[in-house]
Amino acid sequence: MNKNSTIVQLNELNKNTMMEVMGVEYLEAGEGYLKARMPVNDATKQPNGILHGGANLALAETVAGLGSAIMVDLNTYAVRGAQVSANHVGTVSSGWVYAEGNLIHKGINTHVWNIDIKNEEGKLLSTCRLTNFIILKKALD
Amino acid sequence: MNKNSTIVQLNELNKNTMMEVMGVEYLEAGEGYLKARMPVNDATKQPNGILHGGANLALAETVAGLGSAIMVDLNTYAVRGAQVSANHVGTVSSGWVYAEGNLIHKGINTHVWNIDIKNEEGKLLSTCRLTNFIILKKALD
Amino acid sequence: MNKNSTIVQLNELNKNTMMEVMGVEYLEAGEGYLKARMPVNDATKQPNGILHGGANLALAETVAGLGSAIMVDLNTYAVRGAQVSANHVGTVSSGWVYAEGNLIHKGINTHVWNIDIKNEEGKLLSTCRLTNFIILKKALD
Amino acid sequence: MNKNSTIVQLNELNKNTMMEVMGVEYLEAGEGYLKARMPVNDATKQPNGILHGGANLALAETVAGLGSAIMVDLNTYAVRGAQVSANHVGTVSSGWVYAEGNLIHKGINTHVWNIDIKNEEGKLLSTCRLTNFIILKKALD
Repeated sequence: MNKNSTIVQLNELNKNTMMEVMGVEYLEAGEGYLKARMPVNDATKQPNGILHGGANLALAETVAGLGSAIMVDLNTYAVRGAQVSANHVGTVSSGWVYAEGNLIHKGINTHVWNIDIKNEEGKLLSTCRLTNFIILKKALD
Repeated sequence: MNKNSTIVQLNELNKNTMMEVMGVEYLEAGEGYLKARMPVNDATKQPNGILHGGANLALAETVAGLGSAIMVDLNTYAVRGAQVSANHVGTVSSGWVYAEGNLIHKGINTHVWNIDIKNEEGKLLSTCRLTNFIILKKALD
Repeated sequence: MNKNSTIVQLNELNKNTMMEVMGVEYLEAGEGYLKARMPVNDATKQPNGILHGGANLALAETVAGLGSAIMVDLNTYAVRGAQVSANHVGTVSSGWVYAEGNLIHKGINTHVWNIDIKNEEGKLLSTCRLTNFIILKKALD
Repeated sequence: MNKNSTIVQLNELNKNTMMEVMGVEYLEAGEGYLKARMPVNDATKQPNGILHGGANLALAETVAGLGSAIMVDLNTYAVRGAQVSANHVGTVSSGWVYAEGNLIHKGINTHVWNIDIKNEEGKLLSTCRLTNFIILKKALD
């Protein structure tokens, strides 16, 4: 996984993970940018039939995490989600949701992402800010 | 579902939802308090083998959402997660995680929850603040 | 104070408030938009000589609060800052900082703002998300 | 300034800073703990006569910043506020507010604080989470 990974390769990473269960698919990736989608179905809904806010949060954290991972040398560094803040401003009960992540700050040891999640008509559902730590692996233990 | 719902009844709500896929189990519920657990497995992990931070966020939003739902008359009101902020401070790669939600503010139209998620040894992994809106259903549309 | 208030009228509101002490000046105002600036000086610095992060937060809350206030009928409604999340990504030790607030969600009872604060060269220092509650005054007591 | 600094010495740090203008006074300090108070007056109010939410945020950032500063060797490290999330749950229009900061996570490069701000009767007004980066000074430039 690196800047030159194809979308097919990125999607293969999801095997046997939470992303696979949630049906997350990556659509586009670039330096400081990642786009993904997720279906609204039993695996992402809450009991009242609408998309679980937690599904949106997990999608946002996925987008930011992978977005940072393809920017660093994973042999040397680990990416760790450190802080998340999100506003939920809309609901959806069917179809797909689309998440676009944009890097808004690239520090020495941190990446800050904005992730907007919209429904199929482009209406904003959740908007998230996510801080990843970029940590030297040898500092981890 | 109300203040007198049993834990068995609360867990039955999870059928065919994201919580079922994630393996969330409710353990204790009371006025302004909810405890749940979630397994660390393929359905909640990220590709590097550690618990997905998004799984913790989804668990936190679940705990706060159900915690508020059992406090209000759901025939009249809807509970909507509105804002989430979380710090991830630890990682885990096996076993169960335990989430305890405590209501820290009960306003006219809002509930603010703190949710701490710990590993089996009680080490803090994520600490979340979640604001729910309590909305008159007839105001929704 | 309303949509047609002039910038001069808005700045007069600051007399005998925290904004006056901090030297906040409003520059532009519109529906869902407000721009202000604040000097970096003894009244906004921390002991190490750089702008206090709290000054940026106070500026952000000011911009979002006034931005919402000019959008509602203040005889009927009160605006209350409810939740704030911010990332500090840069420091500054002299000159002015500029804050631009844009409304990113207008709900029935809530306004969500994004406020970016930059130095004189346009470098991002802090980016904030702020949720205001728009509350019927007669519900307040 | 270090773990053995007296309260008198800590308060002297505020000269010619934002804290002095806001009237912040430190009351108690310890490892991972700091208590301070701030008056509700013209320098901390908004135009409608209630305490500015931004004053509470600035107080919270002050408490966490100083709380971290007395825990590290400032000749080697710098403390930088990186992320703040806060819920405002009450208002006040006179007297003093009291802030208690408790360190809830001490990482290698980060400190996460909880800061609760209450009125004189102990009613919660704002509750904040603040992440400080602890940065090697030689890495700053």
